[in-house]
Amino acid sequence: MENSYGYPRKAKDDVSLQELRDRLAEFAQVRGWEQYHSPRNLLLALVGEVGELSEIFQWKGEVARGLPNWSSDDKEHLEEELSDVLLYLIRLADVCGLDLGQAALTKIVKNARKYPIVNQTAT
Amino acid sequence: MENSYGYPRKAKDDVSLQELRDRLAEFAQVRGWEQYHSPRNLLLALVGEVGELSEIFQWKGEVARGLPNWSSDDKEHLEEELSDVLLYLIRLADVCGLDLGQAALTKIVKNARKYPIVNQTAT
Amino acid sequence: MENSYGYPRKAKDDVSLQELRDRLAEFAQVRGWEQYHSPRNLLLALVGEVGELSEIFQWKGEVARGLPNWSSDDKEHLEEELSDVLLYLIRLADVCGLDLGQAALTKIVKNARKYPIVNQTAT
Amino acid sequence: MENSYGYPRKAKDDVSLQELRDRLAEFAQVRGWEQYHSPRNLLLALVGEVGELSEIFQWKGEVARGLPNWSSDDKEHLEEELSDVLLYLIRLADVCGLDLGQAALTKIVKNARKYPIVNQTAT
Repeated sequence: MENSYGYPRKAKDDVSLQELRDRLAEFAQVRGWEQYHSPRNLLLALVGEVGELSEIFQWKGEVARGLPNWSSDDKEHLEEELSDVLLYLIRLADVCGLDLGQAALTKIVKNARKYPIVNQTAT
Repeated sequence: MENSYGYPRKAKDDVSLQELRDRLAEFAQVRGWEQYHSPRNLLLALVGEVGELSEIFQWKGEVARGLPNWSSDDKEHLEEELSDVLLYLIRLADVCGLDLGQAALTKIVKNARKYPIVNQTAT
Repeated sequence: MENSYGYPRKAKDDVSLQELRDRLAEFAQVRGWEQYHSPRNLLLALVGEVGELSEIFQWKGEVARGLPNWSSDDKEHLEEELSDVLLYLIRLADVCGLDLGQAALTKIVKNARKYPIVNQTAT
Repeated sequence: MENSYGYPRKAKDDVSLQELRDRLAEFAQVRGWEQYHSPRNLLLALVGEVGELSEIFQWKGEVARGLPNWSSDDKEHLEEELSDVLLYLIRLADVCGLDLGQAALTKIVKNARKYPIVNQTAT
């Protein structure tokens, strides 16, 4: 199965970090943007997008899980800002020569050791 | 192919956002942490991790791609902070009921339209 | 000496945190905005402004002190974003009931103890 | 009236941005830290401190004005993180050659024009 861009895909929502990384690398390369993609430039761009993400939530008070009462436009805006943060994060890891997906798996394992499951029921 | 946690995996570095999302949901569920994972709590936790990521780069001046001269310890620290940002971002999207992977693909397509490739060579 | 808003001022560039705090409190009060100025709302607004500040610097590579070669428009834009961060920070401290000016002085003294001056010349 | 550092002070809580700016400049100068205080280094340090500030609020859900039920230790911690953000912001403006206090006053005037007071009572 291939999508319209020719990238192999397994299932509708099974998007891999590697796929996104490769697309972003190609995106920058064909536009001649690699010269701007230094680690600190990308980090500051990431901070900029985190700011835009925060702006969505800033005057809302507490927000319930699932975003009840949000319009589809607001949800779409949020998806875009979440994506922008993700894309710069993936790109930052890539130009640093790091494997973000493996790093994330490793971190989950480390966190699992740091926070062992406490069995709170006893009989 | 399965890794030690029983999750199906395709290739060494082919980590999907869906897999990470599911692991994080389970991680929170078995620890009774779901009560803390409101959208704004997770957003502030994300900002906290972006801060830790920035601290790694703060006194370094410009940093070259590939991080030449960085020790393996420094690289590992960076991998951990990049991962922390990623994991909170995935978790935030999940509790908002949004599909981050699809959103990221959609954003790349939108960006491609916004920034068309300029053919700079002419003959 | 008074400025056009009736606030007493000592010298041209001697702006106190207390003056800014009082102006911002009045600004919110007369507009009925106090209901929105909860600590976490203001914190997220602050993060949003830090994002806008970062965007100014994101594609520039290293920037020299004094901003040589920046246009006056760019400098004015930077002044506005620095100000936005400051104003939300002051407002956040105020709604938390904290004295930011005294806290800052205390922190400088604490930092001075933490990082004693090393006399590097000996004769 | 002078404090123990020889800086003139008007009243207990009347701390000026100019005073803080001058202290921070001296602080960096006598420690030989000016070489590290480039605009982007200071900006990333600021982002780091905003992260620490966010960590204080991240798992708390909504927080009421005045911070009822916070311990004095928690309040002191918050004062320190607010101060760290402020001090890097002041230092960043200074190395950029900008007058943060005047910029803030100008921004308040601009905001007042942008958001005119609506008289909501009619007789």
